[in-house]
Amino acid sequence: MTVDVPALLARYQQQVDAHLASYLPESRQSPLYAAMRYSLFNGGKRVRPALCYATAELIHKPTEATHRAACAVEMIHAYSLIHDDLPAMDDDDLRRGIPTCHIVYGEATAILAGDGLQALAFEVLTALPPADQPTSNHIHLQLVQQLARAAGPLGMVGGQSLDLNAINRQLDLDELEAMHQAKTGALINASILMGALSTGKASAEDLADLERYSQAIGLAFQVKDDILDVESQTETLGKRQGADQARNKPTYTSLLGLQGAKEKLAELHQTSNNALVRFGDRGVYLRAIADFIVNRDH
Amino acid sequence: MTVDVPALLARYQQQVDAHLASYLPESRQSPLYAAMRYSLFNGGKRVRPALCYATAELIHKPTEATHRAACAVEMIHAYSLIHDDLPAMDDDDLRRGIPTCHIVYGEATAILAGDGLQALAFEVLTALPPADQPTSNHIHLQLVQQLARAAGPLGMVGGQSLDLNAINRQLDLDELEAMHQAKTGALINASILMGALSTGKASAEDLADLERYSQAIGLAFQVKDDILDVESQTETLGKRQGADQARNKPTYTSLLGLQGAKEKLAELHQTSNNALVRFGDRGVYLRAIADFIVNRDH
Repeated sequence: MTVDVPALLARYQQQVDAHLASYLPESRQSPLYAAMRYSLFNGGKRVRPALCYATAELIHKPTEATHRAACAVEMIHAYSLIHDDLPAMDDDDLRRGIPTCHIVYGEATAILAGDGLQALAFEVLTALPPADQPTSNHIHLQLVQQLARAAGPLGMVGGQSLDLNAINRQLDLDELEAMHQAKTGALINASILMGALSTGKASAEDLADLERYSQAIGLAFQVKDDILDVESQTETLGKRQGADQARNKPTYTSLLGLQGAKEKLAELHQTSNNALVRFGDRGVYLRAIADFIVNRDH
Repeated sequence: MTVDVPALLARYQQQVDAHLASYLPESRQSPLYAAMRYSLFNGGKRVRPALCYATAELIHKPTEATHRAACAVEMIHAYSLIHDDLPAMDDDDLRRGIPTCHIVYGEATAILAGDGLQALAFEVLTALPPADQPTSNHIHLQLVQQLARAAGPLGMVGGQSLDLNAINRQLDLDELEAMHQAKTGALINASILMGALSTGKASAEDLADLERYSQAIGLAFQVKDDILDVESQTETLGKRQGADQARNKPTYTSLLGLQGAKEKLAELHQTSNNALVRFGDRGVYLRAIADFIVNRDH
């Protein structure tokens, strides 16, 4: 079975965008809401929601909780990009070819837009069913826990801090991997596990296999980013070419060379496929998404 | 019955500090954790945790969930102060007489420390008991919901955005009140309701009365701040005297005059007492805390 990944991603994107729009309606007209919408609806590929939906399909089927999980991970992702782009952090003026949030709305509103998206992500996960629906409560609380850990000081925020402190410093491969596992891997992992948990039908064995898969594709995503950063043109990527290298940030290509990074990518791709073997045909979407991450050209 | 409020606050402070320390152990040695600890353990009065504990005592008795709620509201409060003090926001170098987080750790780490404290606040609320303890799951999910709403774009973050946009603009009394109800009132309200909900024994009537109380003392807190900002000396308050007026931020004293602000404060104090009548003697601690807020000299 061949999966049309762009069509699959487009379907998931449509689903998650419809739900996201309901949480940030145009009727709210403040600069804060405008900045939050600007950053959330800027043509992102919705990779994390797609992983969430695809995993829910693998385990059983997407539920209302899956939609909420997909929205929440994308809100956390969008907030992290706003804060990463700030002058005090990576100081980026452009993202995906358009001005970053603080360029359009000012730094103060950009900081608050990020803060607000984080809070909203957790609110979205608290659909409170009646107290007599214990399963649903348990599922939603699991989702909050996964997301909070992934976003927090031992996850994404911790990884961003490691990244900042790595500028102009030599990291070895283990340190680079630990940084990326926290900075981007933790949220990718959460997207997948939250997709599984949202169905209420994932076994411990399922979760363990999915965690192996997610760790592999999380790193693969970053290795591929580093390769693209070296290879691609400013026009294609929408940010300055080689921007990370120019700031003396450690990358896979700087540590392993371009060829070595490509071998690492192939290895991670294989690991991700191996982790899905037990799921058989049900792993088709997650396999296709891994192929897509590895083969994308921007 | 006379309550020794400083002793009561000291007892609550000791409780919440012991729990907070367990979530941010000294063994975590990164700049990020150091910055989070610096801002969380800086001599704050722990008013929000105190309201949380005192309300739990009023309804029934503090539980493990109450400790978690008290820690979570204080983490949100601490993160909001870090971000408010940033150069792009209020640009404050001092808080409570010591250098602010970004002065000590740099802007980037300060932004991340705030982000990390927000995520940690939600993680703390997700003590996952076994799936067969539905009551506990329901309580914890209610706590997450209250906190997320209070911290988010219709609560604290939204209020901070209104405040930013009010600089050099004339607000009327209703707009000023709406701004403060969002910026500081929402989290004070959440502290009280979360204290009640954490016991699992609050009725709808209890929650409605507590909401009236919290709205009154939330505004009273702000009116008193404005009065102190005008009256007190730099040495006592630990920040520049009249700093808000100097930036042309609207205040109760600028809109109502000093005497008018004092009358407003007395009125809010009366409203808070009225809201507690149905609780009789059980309202003793919340009444005493309201007295303390109104009568404090810094």
